[in-house]
Amino acid sequence: MNQITASIITIGDELLIGQTIDTNSAFIGQELNKMGVWVKRRVAVGDLWDDIWQALDEESQHSDIIIITGGLGPTADDITKPLLCKYFGGKLVVNEDVLNHVKYLFEKVYRRPGPILERNLKQAEVPDVCTVLHNARGSAPGMWFEKQIVTHAKDNIAGTMPNRIFVSLPGVPHEMKGLVEKEVIPRLKAHFETLPVILHKTMLTAGTGESMLAEHIREWEERLPTFLKLAYLPHYGMVRLRITGTGDERQALETELSEQFSKLKVLVREWLVVDDDLSLQEAIAALLRERNKTVATTESCTGGFIAHLLSRDAGSSRTFKGSIVSYDNQVKTDLLGVSEEVLKEHGAVSEQTVRQMVVGGLQKLKTDFVIATSGIMGPDGGTEQKPVGMVWIAVGNAEKIKSHVFNFRFERNRNIEQTAIAALDMLRKFIVTNS
Amino acid sequence: MNQITASIITIGDELLIGQTIDTNSAFIGQELNKMGVWVKRRVAVGDLWDDIWQALDEESQHSDIIIITGGLGPTADDITKPLLCKYFGGKLVVNEDVLNHVKYLFEKVYRRPGPILERNLKQAEVPDVCTVLHNARGSAPGMWFEKQIVTHAKDNIAGTMPNRIFVSLPGVPHEMKGLVEKEVIPRLKAHFETLPVILHKTMLTAGTGESMLAEHIREWEERLPTFLKLAYLPHYGMVRLRITGTGDERQALETELSEQFSKLKVLVREWLVVDDDLSLQEAIAALLRERNKTVATTESCTGGFIAHLLSRDAGSSRTFKGSIVSYDNQVKTDLLGVSEEVLKEHGAVSEQTVRQMVVGGLQKLKTDFVIATSGIMGPDGGTEQKPVGMVWIAVGNAEKIKSHVFNFRFERNRNIEQTAIAALDMLRKFIVTNS
Repeated sequence: MNQITASIITIGDELLIGQTIDTNSAFIGQELNKMGVWVKRRVAVGDLWDDIWQALDEESQHSDIIIITGGLGPTADDITKPLLCKYFGGKLVVNEDVLNHVKYLFEKVYRRPGPILERNLKQAEVPDVCTVLHNARGSAPGMWFEKQIVTHAKDNIAGTMPNRIFVSLPGVPHEMKGLVEKEVIPRLKAHFETLPVILHKTMLTAGTGESMLAEHIREWEERLPTFLKLAYLPHYGMVRLRITGTGDERQALETELSEQFSKLKVLVREWLVVDDDLSLQEAIAALLRERNKTVATTESCTGGFIAHLLSRDAGSSRTFKGSIVSYDNQVKTDLLGVSEEVLKEHGAVSEQTVRQMVVGGLQKLKTDFVIATSGIMGPDGGTEQKPVGMVWIAVGNAEKIKSHVFNFRFERNRNIEQTAIAALDMLRKFIVTNS
Repeated sequence: MNQITASIITIGDELLIGQTIDTNSAFIGQELNKMGVWVKRRVAVGDLWDDIWQALDEESQHSDIIIITGGLGPTADDITKPLLCKYFGGKLVVNEDVLNHVKYLFEKVYRRPGPILERNLKQAEVPDVCTVLHNARGSAPGMWFEKQIVTHAKDNIAGTMPNRIFVSLPGVPHEMKGLVEKEVIPRLKAHFETLPVILHKTMLTAGTGESMLAEHIREWEERLPTFLKLAYLPHYGMVRLRITGTGDERQALETELSEQFSKLKVLVREWLVVDDDLSLQEAIAALLRERNKTVATTESCTGGFIAHLLSRDAGSSRTFKGSIVSYDNQVKTDLLGVSEEVLKEHGAVSEQTVRQMVVGGLQKLKTDFVIATSGIMGPDGGTEQKPVGMVWIAVGNAEKIKSHVFNFRFERNRNIEQTAIAALDMLRKFIVTNS
C-alpha cells in the first residue's frame, strides 16, 4: 500500500503566543484524510524567515505533500511570498489573471473609493516557478510548487529524489477553504493516481468515562484486525469512539469496518447517543424531524448558548422555534410566570424555578418540548448551599417534566458548555424514552 | 539577551484528521509568553511511536523547553508514557502519591461503584527518571524530565550540551491548565533564573481592512525601533493591532511600548474599538458598566448567539438582562408585537420588522438598549430580492432606533458570526455617539 503523507505548516506569531486558535489545520486535515492522504504532522512557526525556511526543509523530509497556510496578507508582517520565491529559486512576476482579479475585487466587490493600494496590487506578484491557484474569495492567490528533495530517511539508502508538492494558501479561513475544495484537492487527486483508502466510522456516547468504556469493550478491541484502529475521543462528559480503517480495496474495507462498527454499537448500546459523527444537537434535530416535533429553550445561566447550538445547523428552523433567555429574575417572572414566592423561598437556582420555566416556555413559545436551565456558572455568586457549578435543568412537554441537579466544578466557560450538553442529553433521553 | 525558546508537541490522531481543534497549545503559548519564553514551534503528531520519538528528537534541537500534551489517558490508544520511559532511559514504577490520589479520586470524588480498574491504577505508574507533577484535577500526573542534548545547530560548533526540559501533560484541557498554572510555570521560573521580558499591547479596530490600516500607519511603522514588532490580526471585519516588545529591562521596555502604543491609538482613532486585548462584547460590557445601563437582544437569525456572547464573561449579569429569540415568526408576533401586516408586506427580513423587534424588546425585557437581528443565514432560504447573507440589524433605546442592512456572502456559520459582530459594533457606536 502506497501511503501518501502530508504535513501542514501554519505561519504566524499569533498562533504561537496563543492569540488565535488554529482552525485551518483541522479543516485541511479533514479534507486530505477524506481523499486518502494521511496527515503525519502539523507544525506552526512564527513570522520568522529562518524558522519558516527550516520548517519547509524538515517537513519535506517527513511528507510527500506540504501545505502552508498564512503569511500571505498584504501587510508588512508577511514574509512568506518572498521566502517561497527564494526557496524554490524563482523570481516574483506580475500574474495578469491575479491582477485582473484583484482589480475586479477592489472595484466591483469591495467598492473601495480611490485607487487600489500598491500593497494590494502587489498581491498579483507571484513566483514564476509556481502554478497559480485561483482564489475566488480574496486577493491573495494560492501557489503550487513541485520540488525534488534528497531524503535522509533511514529506509531510503539510495537517496532517491521523489517530487514533493508544496501548496501555499492564505490564512483567512473562508479563502483557504475555497481554495482547498476547488483547487488543491482536485489537483492532488490528479497528481497521485493511486491513493489508499482511509475510512472512518464514528459514534457518540454519553454517560460513562473513557476507562469504563475501554474496560467494557476490551475483548472486542483486542481482536480487531490490525488495519482497523479504535480511538477514544473524550469531550465534556461524552466520548466519541472512532474506528479508522486503511486499505487498498474500498469495498472489502467498508464491509469489515461496518461489521466491527455494528458489533461495537451493540457493546456500548447503554451509552450510545448516535451512530454517526454528529454533534448532540444534530442528533436531537434528527429525532425531532422524525417525530415532527419542535423545541424551545428558556435559559438562565446558559444565556442563549443552547438556543445557539439548536439554531446553528442548516435547516434548524424546522425543529427550533425560539427562546426566552431569562438571565435576570425579572424576566423569569414577567415572561415565564415563575412565581415571586418560588424565587423568594427556593431561589432562582432551584428545581421549582426550572420546572416553572418549562411550563412558561411551553405556553409562550408553543413548542412540543422545552429545555430550562438555571445555575451558578462562576467565578462569583456561589454560596455554601449553592456552590459554583451547581445547575438545575428541566426538560418537559405538555404531559410531564423531568428535572435534575448537576454539580460541575469547573471554570465559567466550561460550566456553560457542560450545562448545555447535559441539558441536550436530558432532552434526547426524554424524546427517546419519553421519561 | 538570553532568549529561552519552547516547542509544544501535541499528540493525537484526532488533531491530524481534524476531528478536534487544538486549544491546548494556545493556552500553553499564552502562559509561556507571559513569563518571557518565546514559543518557537508547535507540532502535532499522531499516536505513532516513531513519529512521537522523532518529534522529541527534533524539537529538542529547536528549543530549550519541550512541552508535550496528550497521549496520557487510560485507554489503549495511548502510548506516550512507555515511550517517554524508554526515551529517557528509565523504567515504570508505581508512585505512591499518585496511587493514593487516583484512589481518592475514584472513591471519594467520582464515587464509582466497584473496585478501581486496573487501567486506572496503572496511571500511578511513572518513569523513575522523572519528577512527578501533581494533577489535582485528574488521575494522569504530569511528568518533568531533564536531558542533555547534543545540538546540531550551525551556531554551536563546539556541540555543547545544554540541559533540555521536557514536560509531559495530560490532554484534557481542564487538567492541563491546572498543571501549567500550579506546577509548570513556577518550576520553569525557578529553573531559568534570568528570562527576557516579552510585553504585548493590543488594540481592536473595526470598520476598515488590514491593508488600509497598514497604508495609514506606514510611516509610523517604518520608524518603530527593532525591539518592537507590529502584527495585524484580522478577524471577521475587525483587525487587532498588536505591538510586541522584547528586552532585558521591563521598565524601559514598558515605557517605550506605551509611548508607541499611544501614537498608534491616535493614528487609528477613527476605527478604534478598544485599546486593550478585549473582545467586542467585553468592550461593550465596560461601556455599559460605566454608564450603569443594560442591554437585551431580540434575535431571529442569530438564534441566541449574541445573547451568548453578552453573557459568557464573568459579571455579565450587571449589564445583560435577557433575550427573546424569535426564530419562528409566531414568536415575533406573539412576544415582540411585530405586526402581521409588516410580516406580510415586508417579510421577516426587513427594516420594519427589526425596528418593531427593538420596540417589543424594550417593552418586554425592560432594558436601556436592545439589539434586533433578522436575516437569511443560508445555505437555503435565499431569493433574488433577499439573497443568502442579507441581514437587517437594528439597535435602539427609548429615544431612537437605528437600523442598517448588511450583505454578507458567506457560509452559514460565518454569516451568524459576522451578524453578531456587526450588531455589537452598531450597539457600541450607538452607546458612544448616541447615534
